[in-house]
Amino acid sequence: MLIVQKYGGTSVGNVERIRDVARKVAKTRDEGHDVVVVVSAMSGETDRLLSLAHEVSEAPAEREVDVLLSSGERVTIALLSIALNSMGYPAKAFTGRQVGIVTDGVHTRARIERVGGERVREALKQGIIPVIAGFQGISGESDVTTLGRGGSDLSAVAIAAALKADLCDIYTDVEGVFTADPNIVSEARKLDKVSYEEMLELASLGAKVLQNRSVEYAAKHGVRLRVLSTFKEGSGTLLTEEDADMEKLAVSGVTCDRNQAKITIIGVPDRPGIAAKIFGPVADANIVVDMIIQNVSQESLTDISFTVPRPDVKKTIEMMRSVVKDIGAKELEVKEDIAKVSVVGVGMRSHSGVAVRMFSVLSKEGINIMMISTSEIKISCVIDAKYAELAVRALHRAFELEGA
Amino acid sequence: MLIVQKYGGTSVGNVERIRDVARKVAKTRDEGHDVVVVVSAMSGETDRLLSLAHEVSEAPAEREVDVLLSSGERVTIALLSIALNSMGYPAKAFTGRQVGIVTDGVHTRARIERVGGERVREALKQGIIPVIAGFQGISGESDVTTLGRGGSDLSAVAIAAALKADLCDIYTDVEGVFTADPNIVSEARKLDKVSYEEMLELASLGAKVLQNRSVEYAAKHGVRLRVLSTFKEGSGTLLTEEDADMEKLAVSGVTCDRNQAKITIIGVPDRPGIAAKIFGPVADANIVVDMIIQNVSQESLTDISFTVPRPDVKKTIEMMRSVVKDIGAKELEVKEDIAKVSVVGVGMRSHSGVAVRMFSVLSKEGINIMMISTSEIKISCVIDAKYAELAVRALHRAFELEGA
Repeated sequence: MLIVQKYGGTSVGNVERIRDVARKVAKTRDEGHDVVVVVSAMSGETDRLLSLAHEVSEAPAEREVDVLLSSGERVTIALLSIALNSMGYPAKAFTGRQVGIVTDGVHTRARIERVGGERVREALKQGIIPVIAGFQGISGESDVTTLGRGGSDLSAVAIAAALKADLCDIYTDVEGVFTADPNIVSEARKLDKVSYEEMLELASLGAKVLQNRSVEYAAKHGVRLRVLSTFKEGSGTLLTEEDADMEKLAVSGVTCDRNQAKITIIGVPDRPGIAAKIFGPVADANIVVDMIIQNVSQESLTDISFTVPRPDVKKTIEMMRSVVKDIGAKELEVKEDIAKVSVVGVGMRSHSGVAVRMFSVLSKEGINIMMISTSEIKISCVIDAKYAELAVRALHRAFELEGA
Repeated sequence: MLIVQKYGGTSVGNVERIRDVARKVAKTRDEGHDVVVVVSAMSGETDRLLSLAHEVSEAPAEREVDVLLSSGERVTIALLSIALNSMGYPAKAFTGRQVGIVTDGVHTRARIERVGGERVREALKQGIIPVIAGFQGISGESDVTTLGRGGSDLSAVAIAAALKADLCDIYTDVEGVFTADPNIVSEARKLDKVSYEEMLELASLGAKVLQNRSVEYAAKHGVRLRVLSTFKEGSGTLLTEEDADMEKLAVSGVTCDRNQAKITIIGVPDRPGIAAKIFGPVADANIVVDMIIQNVSQESLTDISFTVPRPDVKKTIEMMRSVVKDIGAKELEVKEDIAKVSVVGVGMRSHSGVAVRMFSVLSKEGINIMMISTSEIKISCVIDAKYAELAVRALHRAFELEGA
């Protein structure tokens, strides 16, 4: 098999850990596989470099920040290659440029446009282990770019796709994707398999294991992606296309997102064009509105509630003040201590009654539902933040997720 | 004028100093000049990276060491560009590759083969200050290479040559080239001008300001090179072709090298081919023999003395033991506590009697001369190490170097 292995910052956090990673790579090689390794900067390094940049300037030029940050991965690829070579496993360090990771020119959050991979293929042919810098690429102007948060995972997936690798293993500090946050639900169970689509919902809802764009890239190019722990032996969680097994269960996981706030505009005159007036400025400010609820209109007046990420609340409120005046609404209400609890599963497509079951579980626990949104494979309820853990535990139990 | 400015590791040792350098660059710009900046890694960074490499492996692969080390300058070029941009001076960071510094493939001590400079010229045309990573280049295989000790100076000189710059300023922690080491001779005077050739002799004899290959490159390409202090205002020392001014003085400087040891082979049969038998193995071991003296032969036996760098003494002795046996010589003598004191000056070409004056000064101080070597612009005497400072001071005074 051709396996791409990606190790994150914690996995290569010091010289001892880099040696451990070298041993893991060597073991995979000994098992007869071809290995391509993608690594991040040593943990803390990117933050250290960024804080240097901010010491120099409050708003450092982004092109130059990319030059700065891209030095972090160079250190790791060099050290890991040195470790492998010294163990007798021929290895070569390659930068993003050398691998031909071509991106657009949007510095600090570039998008991958194509992956060449010529030198990687050549190295593999010669029995050399390519050790590649994640997170970085090169623009059309031949300048270094970085891919933004989670960029190293994306590098690994893109390289796996370009090489048509049999497997792309993302080594991280969790054992895989769980049915719920193990810190909240002690019986939470690791999923052996999850579909790309479920993963996308689980991630955006707070599972925090993989960035969505890596999952989307993998889905689009059919990369078999596996998430597993650097520090603990185990088979991790495999991301694949949906299969019959997955559909046996109505629900695969329960997630909880506490990073939202709810804003309600009360007494909105119910006439066409109102929604655009409210959400136009929010969109223009690049604030992502997650859920929107409009009450049934009474006497031509309605209430509109929506959620935004908590860090954007202040900015949103400021905009809404003038909107409220402009459209002649009555008042503005903000509630920050909310949580969005969701159940996710491709099985919902064939199992009916999941929503009803969710509502009744919450009601039985005495939890009031403030907002509801549903999609084909997910049902989300906004509730009071203080009931979040109770809700997640009750739902996990009700959908029997702890069972094997 | 187009000025290339090079700042070493101490000059960019922390964020505050990087800001100081930015101010110096800005000032040059304000004076109406075009500026190109070349920088080293922050002081201590290269050592930190090297020690990481040695933690991972006793003999790290050199190609990978270059990937590792080249990250150091990336940090500095990024931070300095950020500083300049934030002060309102448009600047762009460029790596060795982006500037087109093409080297051979000898990792950790590559030689520059050519300098493109396309992007630098383009940036200058747009009014942008190019900030370039010194010490690094790219091989024909498109791999990063580093230039070895003093490599950043060489980068600056090579870039100045490629751009046909009017001046190449090397900012360092000394104020220029002195007539003698100011730690030994308190009246030592800074030289305003020195010829390339004198500088080569002064450097190899211990002046330590610039590596010879930078001076050689500058001489070959006619780069006006100036050495000056980052921390103290001043005009530094300018390196140029010889001119009439220089020839007025017989001697420009007195230097002292304590890093040699003297080895004598006693009772060598005086027949053809002996010298090759002695120095062949030394040359094969890449040990640089500096001075060689052969006594007048008596009864077909002679003594041969030579000096080698002190770190190579042990290795040389081992080789000589078998040589002594092989050629039927009597014995081997080693003296480590020696010093080589030299007077240097292009004026010697037109002033006779410099050697005689030197010998008589030393003799008057009661200092015995063990070995003598002379060239067109330099006379060196090997003496007992304990008289080194006395000799330097006496010569400095005798040749009236303290006078303006």
